[in-house]
Amino acid sequence: MEFYAAIRTRQSVRSYKPDPIPQDALQRILEAFQSAPSWANCQPWELILVSDPALKAGLQACLPENNPARRAMLEAPVLAVAVGIEGKSGFYKGQASTARGDWMLFDLGIAAEHLCLAAAAEGLGTVHCALFDFAKANGVLGVPAGRSVVEIIPMGYPAKETRRVPRKDLKEFAFKDRHGAGYL
Amino acid sequence: MEFYAAIRTRQSVRSYKPDPIPQDALQRILEAFQSAPSWANCQPWELILVSDPALKAGLQACLPENNPARRAMLEAPVLAVAVGIEGKSGFYKGQASTARGDWMLFDLGIAAEHLCLAAAAEGLGTVHCALFDFAKANGVLGVPAGRSVVEIIPMGYPAKETRRVPRKDLKEFAFKDRHGAGYL
Repeated sequence: MEFYAAIRTRQSVRSYKPDPIPQDALQRILEAFQSAPSWANCQPWELILVSDPALKAGLQACLPENNPARRAMLEAPVLAVAVGIEGKSGFYKGQASTARGDWMLFDLGIAAEHLCLAAAAEGLGTVHCALFDFAKANGVLGVPAGRSVVEIIPMGYPAKETRRVPRKDLKEFAFKDRHGAGYL
Repeated sequence: MEFYAAIRTRQSVRSYKPDPIPQDALQRILEAFQSAPSWANCQPWELILVSDPALKAGLQACLPENNPARRAMLEAPVLAVAVGIEGKSGFYKGQASTARGDWMLFDLGIAAEHLCLAAAAEGLGTVHCALFDFAKANGVLGVPAGRSVVEIIPMGYPAKETRRVPRKDLKEFAFKDRHGAGYL
């Protein structure tokens, strides 16, 4: 798929067909995740692909009732669970390199989006889900200390067409040279 | 460009030609940034495109001597400066929704990478740069309180071919169903 078509096609999908994901597509998606850039190439991530129904139910139980992705946790054939490794990204010799400390969340955002865009390029839907109890999810999947689940990304063929969600106009947030100076 | 070709083409570029970026390419890149997903579509970002030489020098002065992107701050025709809006992403009615509090860094990672991938699709190079003094950069660009520069991304035509940096093997970090369980 053409690059910008993948960008446009990627929308948040919360309703899935049960059809499995072809192995070759999954491999390409994993390689897209793998190729993500990170702070000093530290790659502070792991990825757990969950298809076991009991574990999917266990992860669903980590979501609050008001999370609109609850049903997707059981419907999607695969839950791609992104795990962050703490204390690597943004550190040098054990010391934080900037005022923001751990840069892991930024790197995980990049890698998770590589996965979601690659899935879109394969005709698959995804949704970024981070509204859940991280500690409880770590328990469900056996994630050890020093690491944490940061996102659960349902992945599968969309059950229906997904509407495009509007965005802010460029002129509201894109500036030339100084904050607030008009760009467009 | 084909989606996976853009993923492969995007490498960290730290040496740039002075050639300007065509306006139509810049527009497509901005729209790719704009279309990034974010927590509850809160879009906690702004983008400042810096081409003024004095401001570029001011931003360069925010980088420590050991940042390998120092020269790129002057060489690249445009510095795309990603600004995060604090206290929006991951919050509901002023309360943090998860144990991680502000989710802005994750969302900014996604949006910044949309920009870098789109630039790659246009034949342009970029590099994620976050090793600098954020407060000082805010002063240079007049970024008001409640917002902060989080990345400076030089953007322009690469001056030379960039080598691909190796990544961890998939079997080191991709697991099936439970943490540590072999996937491949």
